[in-house]
Amino acid sequence: MTLSPTPRSTLTRKRDRAATDRQALYDLLDEALICHLGLVLNGSPVVLPTGYGRDGETLYLHGSTGAGNLRAAATGIDVCVTVTLLDGIVYARSLNNHSMNYRSAVVHGRAKLVDDPEEKMRALEVVTEHLAPGSWEHARAVNAKEFASVAVLSLDLAEASVKARAGGPGEEPEDLSADEIWAGVVPVQTTFGAPVPADYTRVPVPEHVNRGRDR
Amino acid sequence: MTLSPTPRSTLTRKRDRAATDRQALYDLLDEALICHLGLVLNGSPVVLPTGYGRDGETLYLHGSTGAGNLRAAATGIDVCVTVTLLDGIVYARSLNNHSMNYRSAVVHGRAKLVDDPEEKMRALEVVTEHLAPGSWEHARAVNAKEFASVAVLSLDLAEASVKARAGGPGEEPEDLSADEIWAGVVPVQTTFGAPVPADYTRVPVPEHVNRGRDR
Repeated sequence: MTLSPTPRSTLTRKRDRAATDRQALYDLLDEALICHLGLVLNGSPVVLPTGYGRDGETLYLHGSTGAGNLRAAATGIDVCVTVTLLDGIVYARSLNNHSMNYRSAVVHGRAKLVDDPEEKMRALEVVTEHLAPGSWEHARAVNAKEFASVAVLSLDLAEASVKARAGGPGEEPEDLSADEIWAGVVPVQTTFGAPVPADYTRVPVPEHVNRGRDR
Repeated sequence: MTLSPTPRSTLTRKRDRAATDRQALYDLLDEALICHLGLVLNGSPVVLPTGYGRDGETLYLHGSTGAGNLRAAATGIDVCVTVTLLDGIVYARSLNNHSMNYRSAVVHGRAKLVDDPEEKMRALEVVTEHLAPGSWEHARAVNAKEFASVAVLSLDLAEASVKARAGGPGEEPEDLSADEIWAGVVPVQTTFGAPVPADYTRVPVPEHVNRGRDR
């Protein structure tokens, strides 16, 4: 199944970097922790970091009902959600071939406010388990007032593209003999530190909190 | 969990707070490695991960002259550049108070194509040294053909805001006695792995490549 069913999600450059595997999209969305939500407000673009979670072919975005940008995104206007993971810094022998290894997903569509209480609760679980796996069972459940105070948007993943670069540097033929210059990749990772308990915490670090660090 | 519902216009602040914010903006822009560039194309928002560098009050964005989105951004349309660093996952005793620690900068403005050759070369140095400190001196310089093939945009940092969350969880009074629930923060960091030389590399890892890992 191709990831690029429309012109605006079809890559115009570096087509070899377009992953057509649907699984690549899922893996990236499941591994990253934040997305950047783009929308147009008063004619100008606005890009905001946002928490999210994925359930099958649906991306859920989550925020306060008081957040104006989220309210605007819920009115059915076009949005663009981009998720990027930086995997490495690529050192080539020429400055011009310096690059980054990365994976990036771009999703276009119209977000919908999730009204149905059952879907909304499921969406909150998806977003919570994406950020903090195991918390849905461990922490105190959402009460009625809290449930009303959060807004959840859904975005279909139909119109999405994935782009990635991996591997070593590309070089010009003229640079292959420049043996005095180092070339290679410095890997970049997102890592999780040791959990820091709040000063009122009485219980040891639960397994699900430690497990979250291994992602 | 929308991390940065800031209004587009810069808030009026006391002078000391503004100075603090300004340094926070510089520090964040200098620490992060990629930005997300938002612009409006055919009425729809587009958000793309982009390399950049900062020189004083100017942000430089860098890409190929063949990149349509970059060409569009260079025509003087409004853009929004957002830079986000995730610092921690916040586990509260209630699901509703789960959160993220983060720092985020949002810059609004109109990007300009850098035409002046001297500024363009300086901008390439700024972008290179941001990504790979020390490479500007170590690697082969940009030749005339390569210089012509890259586009550099400049964006003034005048209209920028910084938003951040730090520290432990916030809790509802009713949850403070729920001692069976763990609360605290799992720190999130960007880390650099051991440099991986290309198979044709003949020299040991130079100091500047190792130094880059310590950022």
